[in-house]
Amino acid sequence: MGDKALNPSRRHRVVIVGGGFGGVRAAKALKRLPVDVTLIDRNNHHLFQPLLYQVATGVLSPGQIAPALRTLFRGQDNVRVLMGEVERFDLERRVVHAVAQHEMEIEYDTLIVAAGATHSYFGNDDWAPDAPGMKTLDDANRVRSRILWAFELAEQAQTQEERDALLTFVVVGAGPTGVELAGQIAILARRVLKKEHRAIDTRAARVVLLDAAPSVLPPFPEKLRDHAEHDLRKLGVDVELGAMAVDIDEDGIDVRPTEGGETRRIPARTVLWAAGVQASPLATMLAEESGTTTDRAGRLLVRHDLTLPVHPEVFAIGDMVSRPGVPGVAQAAIQEGKYVAKVISARINQYPEPPTFAYKDKGTMATIGRTRAVAKVRGVKLTGQLAYYIWAFVHVAYLVGWGNRFEAVARWMWTIVARNRRERLISPTSLLTEQQVAEEIEASRERSRVTV
Amino acid sequence: MGDKALNPSRRHRVVIVGGGFGGVRAAKALKRLPVDVTLIDRNNHHLFQPLLYQVATGVLSPGQIAPALRTLFRGQDNVRVLMGEVERFDLERRVVHAVAQHEMEIEYDTLIVAAGATHSYFGNDDWAPDAPGMKTLDDANRVRSRILWAFELAEQAQTQEERDALLTFVVVGAGPTGVELAGQIAILARRVLKKEHRAIDTRAARVVLLDAAPSVLPPFPEKLRDHAEHDLRKLGVDVELGAMAVDIDEDGIDVRPTEGGETRRIPARTVLWAAGVQASPLATMLAEESGTTTDRAGRLLVRHDLTLPVHPEVFAIGDMVSRPGVPGVAQAAIQEGKYVAKVISARINQYPEPPTFAYKDKGTMATIGRTRAVAKVRGVKLTGQLAYYIWAFVHVAYLVGWGNRFEAVARWMWTIVARNRRERLISPTSLLTEQQVAEEIEASRERSRVTV
Repeated sequence: MGDKALNPSRRHRVVIVGGGFGGVRAAKALKRLPVDVTLIDRNNHHLFQPLLYQVATGVLSPGQIAPALRTLFRGQDNVRVLMGEVERFDLERRVVHAVAQHEMEIEYDTLIVAAGATHSYFGNDDWAPDAPGMKTLDDANRVRSRILWAFELAEQAQTQEERDALLTFVVVGAGPTGVELAGQIAILARRVLKKEHRAIDTRAARVVLLDAAPSVLPPFPEKLRDHAEHDLRKLGVDVELGAMAVDIDEDGIDVRPTEGGETRRIPARTVLWAAGVQASPLATMLAEESGTTTDRAGRLLVRHDLTLPVHPEVFAIGDMVSRPGVPGVAQAAIQEGKYVAKVISARINQYPEPPTFAYKDKGTMATIGRTRAVAKVRGVKLTGQLAYYIWAFVHVAYLVGWGNRFEAVARWMWTIVARNRRERLISPTSLLTEQQVAEEIEASRERSRVTV
Repeated sequence: MGDKALNPSRRHRVVIVGGGFGGVRAAKALKRLPVDVTLIDRNNHHLFQPLLYQVATGVLSPGQIAPALRTLFRGQDNVRVLMGEVERFDLERRVVHAVAQHEMEIEYDTLIVAAGATHSYFGNDDWAPDAPGMKTLDDANRVRSRILWAFELAEQAQTQEERDALLTFVVVGAGPTGVELAGQIAILARRVLKKEHRAIDTRAARVVLLDAAPSVLPPFPEKLRDHAEHDLRKLGVDVELGAMAVDIDEDGIDVRPTEGGETRRIPARTVLWAAGVQASPLATMLAEESGTTTDRAGRLLVRHDLTLPVHPEVFAIGDMVSRPGVPGVAQAAIQEGKYVAKVISARINQYPEPPTFAYKDKGTMATIGRTRAVAKVRGVKLTGQLAYYIWAFVHVAYLVGWGNRFEAVARWMWTIVARNRRERLISPTSLLTEQQVAEEIEASRERSRVTV
């Protein structure tokens, strides 16, 4: 560490980029240290991403899984929240460049970058408008509007062919998000909507879950994978494995067996993308600045203590980092955030630094449908309703803020009892594609820069 | 009525345009009649508009005040819900033309048009991007994002002048929506956010409530108007009466006394529009088709039984209709919806039709801030906390669907106890203006028409 960092005449400045699981946990763990923390995020909220699929299918409201970052740090005076987009790093001068209304230069003594990942179309970005992904709340609103809009249009379809395409929902990617999304769409069609439509039988809707891998939930043990697949099929989901997307347009998806063979067309007006991970572009930026590299998914290679080579004062954590043996899950980011706070504490107090970061696998879980799940907790494999209740307990325990927890439980109970969904809005705005929104926002920015 | 209408060989067809208070209540009241009801709305949800300001200020989630129309009629088999935009009426052929994915022709025997109203900029539509209104959920999301975004930018302001403009919120229009909105912004600034910002004192925010009229809440009795104004001032709202907006741009608003005098500039980065009512364009369309007229606000003149001249089979109700002595409130639309159902029942059963529609004033209410309100209920004037509890009781009683009611109460209680707001999202999409969204949606439609 440089002299500045240990200069006792002013407090050590920690800048954290990203208010996800890693960034928030690091900031929380710095509470009792004599440091000034600045937490920068492009959004004003934290996002409990594992429950995003519940917003996308109308169970929870956006606010229930996305507390304001300021609220999380209301009682922690050494944290300042700054809403803005990070544009670049100057590792030599130890400055982060961010922009909101103005360009901002934020100086740091220690930098923690926890900017996460987004979905990747594996080089087929032109699929994006017709196969929206599931990473942000805007994404979830968009997916919800698309699903419900398809049922509305099916009610008005003029041919059987059109009706079938509107009632076919293809989810690409059979990881936890894809599995949970497909299960919830099946329940929406088979139970929630069945008494509400007149011209169509919503139970006839076809939900296809597609993955190039030979099984669902690849990181889970085989027994649980089989169980999950069985539960999905019981819900009426067509699980199509060993099959990859080769083209997607507004009328459907072309699918080819991974082992080779003929390309097949699935006519479908709703294709949802739950595959592929691409690290935040900030990972590449940091790699270039520090002379290290990224992997195929754009994830940064870091040292064993999660710092950059040559820059021990810069940490990178969470999904934007490549860590062999560590899965891209919330739990990993949380443990890394805590670890980094410990390293900073040791440096400030001049204790020996804690040893190399080691990930402790506390378990993995995924829900399937209404009250079923598969879970591996400390080596024990669980399925069915028991797994669901453990899933619910763990997620509620981690939901930040007591109000959110209480409400989410009330909402889940109500959803199970009433077999309905409360958040069933199709908003004109959320039917816009990500690209349309991005273009308009860029246009607004240009305008306001010109007039200011 | 024509022969068709009374032809017993098939059921009488009622088409209702608009799923607001009037349309929904009419459809519900037709439950036990041998009629087939088609309810057309451009949205898939009903909207409990009197609580829209709570969405705009982060108290309730959109889903809590907007149940899906299909859910409302889940148990009523004679109602079919159709999502689409009504483009025109053919009163001679008794056909409604609507469009979603396709052009649709919907035949009726009886037509009820209840398409409501939107806000009006009194001929200054160029103010729209800088002074968003409050009529739809998209509007409310936009207002919420703008308010919270202003506080975020104030945290980063580089001059005192910039900070002051960001912390000035001008609400134009001191009817119930304007009063409630101004009160909630004041509470947001003075209580909710005060511990969450570091670089600014949010309590210094200035909330201006502007109206050309000489008092707030013009339809209320004088005693209640004075009380409301007093409560608003106690919350720290600058109530500026007898003052009209003469220009609005992105940096502020020009204001002139109604009695004449000098124009004054209020630098403000957030101006919200809660003034002016403009009937749905369908009112003008109906007027042209039936040879009747509209008033200055574009509201249709109807006969005493709410039918159109020459077309006794066409009813128009709610905010799109000009009815001397009847205020533009939910209660009036509800009573009209019920009345029209009674007329239809009488015609079908060949009973004498009920006499001319007469509005019964059951009372008016408005909340001011956290737990205060003014109310006039059956002639009794109430103020303060008692009025608030009556307000809450009545609104909860009218919230459609038991689940919503239970949740809304839990949410309000929690909001009051925790002094926080759960729905505090700034979404990039919702920062787009109404016009930007409309243009992009139009562009999408054009594209899909070309490719289909």
